[in-house]
Order: sequence, then structure tokens, then C-alpha cells
Amino acid sequence: MRDLQSYINEKKILIENTLREIFASFKEVPGILRDSMEYMIFSDGKKIRPILAIATCEALGKPIQNLLPFACAIEMIHTYSLIHDDLPSIDNDDLRRGKPTCHKVFGEAIAILAGDALLTEAFRIMSDKRYTENVSSRTVKRIIFEIAQAAGAEGMVGGQVMDVLYDGQEGSKTIVDFIHLHKTCALIKASVRVGAIIGGAKGKELKALSRYGECVGLAFQIVDDILDYEGDENIVGKRLKKDERKQTYVKHYGLTTSKLKIEKLIEEAISNIHFLGDNSILLKELALYIANRNS
Amino acid sequence: MRDLQSYINEKKILIENTLREIFASFKEVPGILRDSMEYMIFSDGKKIRPILAIATCEALGKPIQNLLPFACAIEMIHTYSLIHDDLPSIDNDDLRRGKPTCHKVFGEAIAILAGDALLTEAFRIMSDKRYTENVSSRTVKRIIFEIAQAAGAEGMVGGQVMDVLYDGQEGSKTIVDFIHLHKTCALIKASVRVGAIIGGAKGKELKALSRYGECVGLAFQIVDDILDYEGDENIVGKRLKKDERKQTYVKHYGLTTSKLKIEKLIEEAISNIHFLGDNSILLKELALYIANRNS
Repeated sequence: MRDLQSYINEKKILIENTLREIFASFKEVPGILRDSMEYMIFSDGKKIRPILAIATCEALGKPIQNLLPFACAIEMIHTYSLIHDDLPSIDNDDLRRGKPTCHKVFGEAIAILAGDALLTEAFRIMSDKRYTENVSSRTVKRIIFEIAQAAGAEGMVGGQVMDVLYDGQEGSKTIVDFIHLHKTCALIKASVRVGAIIGGAKGKELKALSRYGECVGLAFQIVDDILDYEGDENIVGKRLKKDERKQTYVKHYGLTTSKLKIEKLIEEAISNIHFLGDNSILLKELALYIANRNS
Repeated sequence: MRDLQSYINEKKILIENTLREIFASFKEVPGILRDSMEYMIFSDGKKIRPILAIATCEALGKPIQNLLPFACAIEMIHTYSLIHDDLPSIDNDDLRRGKPTCHKVFGEAIAILAGDALLTEAFRIMSDKRYTENVSSRTVKRIIFEIAQAAGAEGMVGGQVMDVLYDGQEGSKTIVDFIHLHKTCALIKASVRVGAIIGGAKGKELKALSRYGECVGLAFQIVDDILDYEGDENIVGKRLKKDERKQTYVKHYGLTTSKLKIEKLIEEAISNIHFLGDNSILLKELALYIANRNS
């Protein structure tokens, strides 16, 4: 087992290189659109979603070559969601990944369109034979479905709508649970599932890995809420202390329960990957890394 | 040959009914998100893209049952693009299809997210076995690719970016040509292609139908520019006389040349569907309808 941080760094470079290949293949894209798309996708994000996909596929003992375009598509969808979330009419954030948000640099109109393009291109890449020729069309179709469902009205966008709707409202545990499961958890869970599908997981194994993804996804968001409450803005790289307006886990469950919930989720995540034997170590370490991150 | 208007009305109802089925199947969508998506998709649009797809498939003598989900997906993508185009930071329009624009009714944040959801759900529907089970996965993948490419950075969004960039600028024939081919023509052409693919067209026939779609798509936009110049706002259902700020065909080529160009495009469109024999009549009438519309 190599050191986790070097594993993460290695995979980040791999994902970034694949994304660079994808962007290099664009021919007719207006300069400012390309720049605005690249600005956020090539900023120093955690890339936790594609890394989870890759680690899951590797834990199943399968090569990741066929997975990479899908992993990049997921990162593109995540990035579009950040660009749109930051917009003045939504969260109105000036800082993301330690630098000015997309609309601060390119203006609101271009930021909206950069998000639209990233989302659309994610689906283009997954269906483009240049990238996914070695995956059966049946599997491509299935993965597109998984990702679209997780990112759409019944997934990420639905969660984001509730987040907007309850901005500055009292809210409740039910509301914060809904937001977290849809806004954040759905796409993280889908990332693990896509890695598992390319890794050949079926039936019980796929179900167990899905649950792993769900637990890790929810833990990820609760950590975010704790960082919002007690983190350092310079390390986290975005505006914090939003909990007075936003529905956060800390707000509705308190700090102690939130930390306890993360522990329980990571425990449950790990209990679901025992079937992988020694191959579970990496996914276990990733779960702990997500629970203990400070940015 | 039935009367064209009754054909159009019949297909509009069919598309709307299919869209209603799709929306009825949503389970976990927040009420306001569903309302905002439905508000514009169920407004009285021309539905020219799905109708062109259907007419192309029928001209090839194939049933349209398998095409309907794709035709609806295209209409959803078109609708998302209208919602985003109308936003205050983009075109800042208050009127669309004769009623207040999405953000006027639901606010900017929800309008952005309604567009995001429509775009994502379009890809979900195309990959959802509930809707496209009877189409081979290979064809599903191909159609998703065609549509994503036409709607993405090298297609519709790219055109929209140039439209934003040259808003209030001098512009040129080259610029207006780029905008029209990408912003409008690409998705209309893709609609015809998708109808042709489901209709079983290949090789020369597919190429000829693509050219038909391209000519009709470009003519459609030039008609839009003429309506902007000399149309009636109450009939067209949106704000007109934008040509002082916007890059329009009329602005750069003049009214006479614009009208002549439409004639030529429709002529070329029709010349490309001769191979269909008697089955070309409907597509021919549709081309003429697009050229002569007043709204």
C-alpha cells in the first residue's frame, strides 16, 4: 500500500492530463468560453469524485483506462455545479478554490454559459467514440443514466433548489438531510457506482459499494459544514461561516452530533467494503481522509 | 397528404403528451423546480425541432414511437437554452412565448437551476431504459453524442457565447454566420439527423437529410432576424427590434439579401430530399412553413 497522499496526487495528475487531452481536442470553441471552462476545471480542486471512481475500480482489480473519460465527465459536472452555485443570484460567492469565482473573472453571462458547456460536454465525452470506444454501448448508456440521474432534478439540481429555497429560512433536520443527500451525496455515490460498474461489480457487491459511496458522500458534506463552522478560510479556499443563512448539519444537529455522525458514516462505509479483502485498504483510507480533511 | 397545420397540431399534442408522461414520472423533485421546468416546456412553443425529427423519420417510412423520447429531449434542451438566454445577465428578456420569462416568475436562481435540470434530464431520458429500451444501445449512444455535440461548446453554447460577446458591438458577416450556424442551426440540424438515424438513413441519404436540416435551420434563424426587424411583437410573443444591439442577418446583409437567402436555402433544402420521392412532400411543406412563418 503506497502512501495515500502520493496516490491522490498521482491520480489528480492523471485526471488533469486526461482533461487536458479532452480540452485540446476542441476545435471551434470561442476563446473566452474555453478559457472560462478551463479556469475552474484546472484550478486546484480536490477531485474527490473521480478519485473515488478510480479507487473503486482499482479495488475491484480492473484497469482504469476505460473509466477515465467517465471520471473526467463527473469532474466536469461537479465543476459546472460550482460555477453556477457561486453566481450572484444563487450563493453570490467571490472565492472558490482560493481564487476569484468564474463570474468574478469572466462576468455572469459567460459563467452561466461556461457551466452549461461543461455539463453538455460531459455527456458528449461519455458518448464520444474517441473516448469510450472500448466500453460496450450498453454500459455507456447505463453510466450516462446513472450520472444524469444523480446530477438532475431528482439529484444534485433538486438539492441545490432546496438549498436556495431555504437560504435564510429556519429549515429543519428533514430539509438539511434532503439537501445533503441530493446536492452532494448523489454525485459522490454515482462516482463510486461508475467506478464499480467499470470494475465489473454486480448484485450485492455493487449494492455494498453504493452504500459505501453514499456514506462517504454524506460524511463529505457534514465535514464541509463543520469546516464552514470552525475551518480556516485561507485553508478551505472559499467563504465560510455561511451557516447562519444556510441549512447545515451543524446548525440542526449540533457540532458534537455532527462529528459523531461522521464517525458512524465512515464506520458503515468501511463495513460495506470488507468483501474486498486486502483491496479494501485504499477505499478505507480514502474514507478516513474525507472524514479528517481540513480543506 | 393531410393539411400541414393539422399535421403540426397533431404532432405538437403527441410531443406534449410524451413530455407530460415524462414529467409525471418524477418522484423526488422539489415543487418549485418542477413548476419552473413545466412553466416553459408546456408553454405554447413552436416545437419545430421535435416536429422536424418526427417528419424526417416518417418520411423514411419508419414508426416514430422509438423517436419520441429523443424528440422530447431535444425540446427540453431547446427550452433550457431559452430560459438561460432570457436571464438578466444574458439577454434580459421579460417576454417569451407571449408570457413572462421563467426568471420573471420564479426568480433568477430558480430559472438558472430549471435550465440546468432540463438539460440534465434530457440526457437522463435518452439513457433511461424506461424510454429507450427498444433502441439499440449503440444507437442511443450515437444519438446522445449527436445532440450533445450540437448543444455544447462547439455548437449551441458556443454560438450563444459569441452572441453575448458581440452584443452591442459592430460585428461582421463572419460573426453573424458563426452565431447563426452554432446557436440555432446546430440543434435544428441535429433534430433532423436524429429523426433520420431512427428512420434508418445512412450514407448519402443521411448526408442529404443533414444538409436539408442545416438549410432549414439557417433559414429559421434568418426568418427570426426578419421578424425582429419587421414583425409584430404581439404575434411573435417576444421582445423585438433587438437588431441595434444584436448581430442579425438583416443588420449585416440587408433585408433584401436576407429574404433572398431564405429562398435559396429552402430551395437547397428541398433539392436534398428529392430522393424521398412522394415522401418528401411533408418535409418540403415544413421547409416552406419555416420560411413563411410570422411568429
